Amino acid sequence: MLITPKTLSGFKDRLPKEAYAKTKMLRSITNTFEKFGFAPIETPHLEYAEILKKQGSDEIQKELYHFIDHGNREVALRFDLTLPLARFISQYKNELGLPFKRYCVGNVFRGERAQKGRYREFTQCDFDFIGTTSIGSDVEIVEVIYQTLKDLGLKDFTIHINNRKIFNGLCEYLGIKDSTIEVLRIIDKIDKIGEIAIREELKNISLKADKIDFLLSFIQKKQESSALSFLESLQEYKSHNATLKEGLEELEELCKILKNLLPQNSYKINLSIARGLGYYTGIIYETTLNDLPSLGSVCSGGRYDNLTQNFSKEAMSGVGASIGLDRLLAGLLELNLISMQENVANALLIPLSSLQTSYECAKNLRKLGVNIEVYPEVTKPKKSFQYANKKGYKWVIILGEDEIQNNTYSLKDMESGEQYTNLSLNEVKEKIML
Amino acid sequence: MLITPKTLSGFKDRLPKEAYAKTKMLRSITNTFEKFGFAPIETPHLEYAEILKKQGSDEIQKELYHFIDHGNREVALRFDLTLPLARFISQYKNELGLPFKRYCVGNVFRGERAQKGRYREFTQCDFDFIGTTSIGSDVEIVEVIYQTLKDLGLKDFTIHINNRKIFNGLCEYLGIKDSTIEVLRIIDKIDKIGEIAIREELKNISLKADKIDFLLSFIQKKQESSALSFLESLQEYKSHNATLKEGLEELEELCKILKNLLPQNSYKINLSIARGLGYYTGIIYETTLNDLPSLGSVCSGGRYDNLTQNFSKEAMSGVGASIGLDRLLAGLLELNLISMQENVANALLIPLSSLQTSYECAKNLRKLGVNIEVYPEVTKPKKSFQYANKKGYKWVIILGEDEIQNNTYSLKDMESGEQYTNLSLNEVKEKIML
Repeated sequence: MLITPKTLSGFKDRLPKEAYAKTKMLRSITNTFEKFGFAPIETPHLEYAEILKKQGSDEIQKELYHFIDHGNREVALRFDLTLPLARFISQYKNELGLPFKRYCVGNVFRGERAQKGRYREFTQCDFDFIGTTSIGSDVEIVEVIYQTLKDLGLKDFTIHINNRKIFNGLCEYLGIKDSTIEVLRIIDKIDKIGEIAIREELKNISLKADKIDFLLSFIQKKQESSALSFLESLQEYKSHNATLKEGLEELEELCKILKNLLPQNSYKINLSIARGLGYYTGIIYETTLNDLPSLGSVCSGGRYDNLTQNFSKEAMSGVGASIGLDRLLAGLLELNLISMQENVANALLIPLSSLQTSYECAKNLRKLGVNIEVYPEVTKPKKSFQYANKKGYKWVIILGEDEIQNNTYSLKDMESGEQYTNLSLNEVKEKIML
Repeated sequence: MLITPKTLSGFKDRLPKEAYAKTKMLRSITNTFEKFGFAPIETPHLEYAEILKKQGSDEIQKELYHFIDHGNREVALRFDLTLPLARFISQYKNELGLPFKRYCVGNVFRGERAQKGRYREFTQCDFDFIGTTSIGSDVEIVEVIYQTLKDLGLKDFTIHINNRKIFNGLCEYLGIKDSTIEVLRIIDKIDKIGEIAIREELKNISLKADKIDFLLSFIQKKQESSALSFLESLQEYKSHNATLKEGLEELEELCKILKNLLPQNSYKINLSIARGLGYYTGIIYETTLNDLPSLGSVCSGGRYDNLTQNFSKEAMSGVGASIGLDRLLAGLLELNLISMQENVANALLIPLSSLQTSYECAKNLRKLGVNIEVYPEVTKPKKSFQYANKKGYKWVIILGEDEIQNNTYSLKDMESGEQYTNLSLNEVKEKIML
């Protein structure tokens, strides 16, 4: 009985074109992280289920892949990289020392309802700065977001910055402190469902009209010129309570340092971003590509004060962000900032008479820094040239009897059709690597 | 209730030192693959269980992590990268075109009995050449093994080469063709359990003493000088049957091309290697590090003719090999060919008075190609220098009031204790990157 070859619904294969684009992207991203001293760590895909069950929204809990293993343990596939990080930090605290900076690239699993562009297994790329409350660590997260996107070739993006404390302070001021999380989750949807629907939902949780007005007019204030002058215009709110004051002052401190560090148009105070996740407690971030506003945030994060609360009574503060790799890849491809190429080599070498000489020639070219694929058979040129075309090779090196006898090489430009003969190895290299 | 932070038995975290060493190793390996035109692909960690259940030894089947998912499907975590490749090739055959070369790096899962050095989740690194029977593809697999290990800094290793056809031909000649797989699995253990135990096991499957003698004396023949002259000495066996002849001739063809391609002492015909896995049908490989013989093979593989047999009636031949990443990492660490460093940056910058100036200075140094970690707080030097020591930084850049006023930098060599003052940014760079 033959089996139909297929992937599970919501799971995805990547063919070479896309996998190679993703590989190049990941190399660039991890390279940027390392420039700032973030080191990689690795944790398993499988964890004790209880470690993953204690946190995360109800929805995520429903989507958890969990089962009983060979040793009768309840185990689960991780659904993010943050809970494993919390477990990791708690487990190796003494060994690691603080502050601790790490990045982690890995796949996570959520049994979501299958829908276009959403997968049940996807790659996350997190970087976090644990064990310090210094504004320096917040500064660095913003700087890493900026540099990562720059290094990927992106020119036009905005890092939106807000502070949960401002929102908490506002709710406190309005006497609706106990509803803060509920209000936050509603507000978080404003871009998706619009102001009218938000008003309706806020009314449904018994919020009075004047308070709704106050809240919505506040979060819809827009930064017109610089971040610092926008914050200046919000001075009056500092007098409402200590939480609001702290939130605004932290943003001021952050923006004072960012001022000489990043271009002014690369970041912006945005009072409407809320980050639905319960665990944020301070400054928060989202990042949008200005040319692709509908793509959503490609890098989000913020400060959390209770990372290790399930494992330890000791509070541990940290700040971090996560790159949505698949979304960012889609964006880079749409903006033509990363190519979808089938071939990872610079040229295809076609042996017309001797495999042996061809492999030697390829070896010598690789030594000169040219990546070479050798067509593995001495066959009819029609077949090997078809292969070159299918793979989109611009350059084909031809090695026949004549070339071998004269110790020269022929090179064909598959785009222009032009053919060069009697080349030396160095001339081949120069043409290809031009 | 607090949860004890721990990993599942047989699963492993990697702290920065080890994770960074592995990251550097993987970058080198995938870079070598790409030099030869192998492109990456990606398949999910989870597959329909039936796709993974049809192949693999009974042992592996017992170790399979499988469960029922949210959609009532029986799913399983992959236990190798070969079965997903077979599924992948069958599914996208027309899109991919043949021959098809791919590499794949990924984690696989086996619920083995926990034992030292064996993990239930580990990383494989496969490269395969599908859809051609040309000896050229076998040549290239050997060449890639060689180049991958060279690029990792290894100098002294041996690629052991054999051909399943020789073994099959021998069994045919001895009239024990039906027991070939059984005999093979016993022979495969010779290095582990020794000749006496092997003889006992072969006797237990009713093999006569003279046949055992013949078999053992054949597989224990040793290559003394070159591979080609060793093969020359085996000429007489060609007359026994067509399978033996084919097996020996394929090796001759392979070694003729390898002769001018690789140093003679880097590969060797080894008639005793068997590769227990059922699916090999042609030339097979194992690779040992000469300085660490007890480590076992770090890269093994071979040719298989029936890769896609569960999915299609069409036969598809391929050849490939797999790097045991964890084992190879252990070897590289033992030979000091890869460093276990805590810090991924070149220097730590310690701000003694202004965070703002420190981040600006770090930014300028990164532009010059120096990776800089900034200590995130203006704090007592004792604390930040302790941090520099713990992380093993050789270089610390100090930025205090004086330095900022004079627009200079101080640099401390943590190993010698020497301190340099009044440096320009470029002088700092030159000292660090020396």
